[in-house]
Amino acid sequence: MQLAKVLGQVVSTVKEPGLARFTLLLVQDAGGADPEQTRGAAYVAVDLVGAGIGEIVLIATGSAARVAAGADAPTDRAVVGIVDTVTRSGRTTYRKD
Amino acid sequence: MQLAKVLGQVVSTVKEPGLARFTLLLVQDAGGADPEQTRGAAYVAVDLVGAGIGEIVLIATGSAARVAAGADAPTDRAVVGIVDTVTRSGRTTYRKD
Amino acid sequence: MQLAKVLGQVVSTVKEPGLARFTLLLVQDAGGADPEQTRGAAYVAVDLVGAGIGEIVLIATGSAARVAAGADAPTDRAVVGIVDTVTRSGRTTYRKD
Amino acid sequence: MQLAKVLGQVVSTVKEPGLARFTLLLVQDAGGADPEQTRGAAYVAVDLVGAGIGEIVLIATGSAARVAAGADAPTDRAVVGIVDTVTRSGRTTYRKD
Amino acid sequence: MQLAKVLGQVVSTVKEPGLARFTLLLVQDAGGADPEQTRGAAYVAVDLVGAGIGEIVLIATGSAARVAAGADAPTDRAVVGIVDTVTRSGRTTYRKD
Repeated sequence: MQLAKVLGQVVSTVKEPGLARFTLLLVQDAGGADPEQTRGAAYVAVDLVGAGIGEIVLIATGSAARVAAGADAPTDRAVVGIVDTVTRSGRTTYRKD
Repeated sequence: MQLAKVLGQVVSTVKEPGLARFTLLLVQDAGGADPEQTRGAAYVAVDLVGAGIGEIVLIATGSAARVAAGADAPTDRAVVGIVDTVTRSGRTTYRKD
Repeated sequence: MQLAKVLGQVVSTVKEPGLARFTLLLVQDAGGADPEQTRGAAYVAVDLVGAGIGEIVLIATGSAARVAAGADAPTDRAVVGIVDTVTRSGRTTYRKD
Repeated sequence: MQLAKVLGQVVSTVKEPGLARFTLLLVQDAGGADPEQTRGAAYVAVDLVGAGIGEIVLIATGSAARVAAGADAPTDRAVVGIVDTVTRSGRTTYRKD
Repeated sequence: MQLAKVLGQVVSTVKEPGLARFTLLLVQDAGGADPEQTRGAAYVAVDLVGAGIGEIVLIATGSAARVAAGADAPTDRAVVGIVDTVTRSGRTTYRKD
């Protein structure tokens, strides 16, 4: 899974029915030494865990996103966890407030 | 899903039968701070929502594209939503005209 | 799908049986403003449409390649269409001779 | 599979039920001439082999991660092996202590 | 499929049972004008064709690797062919000795 930060939300009225039941979150990858530092292009993931803006989350990609979202959901990204702590070599580099 | 902008269209007469029922859109990723700014190489996605040129759309990749397009469609990219608004930290950074 | 240009061919005598029935084409991605301009590393795709050298084609990647090539074909890339025209914002940027 | 180094651990209390039975390891790709030299962003993989911090491991990505972790596990990365030795052109470039 | 060069071998004693029957090859992508010139990080693929060090091979990625290796093999890369020749625009740029 990717570590990513929730930036905001995307609204789409005209969309595939299989996406209708989800909140669409705007997220950005965050896997550097400082997990709050994001990088790369933002993308969109369906929210499965009730994540809030600014939180560091776990993103499942590819078919793994549909294991959780449902096989009929045409999504390739899903938020599957909210991160509490990240530890590197015994040192905590991120802790959720 | 990726945020992308619809640039135009691709016509292919000699193609796999499973692609015959779709419009093939030329799109380019658009996930920067300004969602109208595109980047990277253009690619081709089957249109499932009737997207128009210049619109910002949601692209499903991999097997997720076939959840919506049909399991017999040999495509790895599909347009699965037309974006109305993108919001970052409470501020609207894109709004469809 | 990716836009790509057919560069040539690859011959492999010792290979998985599921690849035996295909011509293996050497292709390179081509999705810039000029679709004849290629970029990145060349790769190998099974030919499903009788594409010729120099043609611009559509490449399906991942499991989509096997939708067309057959579920028993151990390939992750397939040529699924020959491109006639590419149009950007109403202007034709590529036309097959 | 990717060669990667185990950096640490990620804790997530609010997560998909299918992830509950796994330790979530923080890993980073390591495929250069010196396998102890890592590169790129860190990411998260479920641990299937009891890997320890600092070890070089094999990471399966995509649906291959679920072959080992279980089809109901919404993960796209799994640690599927602990590397003992890496040999290049007959020369051992890495040996587990 | 990717063109890649076989660099060496990886030994892993503690690994998923589904990997036990395979030789694990260390390979590196090779898709430039000179197919003997490699680039990028090295990675690990299961050997399905008896490839030797220094040979140029075809690598299947993703679920295609399991079509050949067996559905129970937790691998995302497999060597599925040994390349005899690569031809670009009618000119042979690689020939196996």
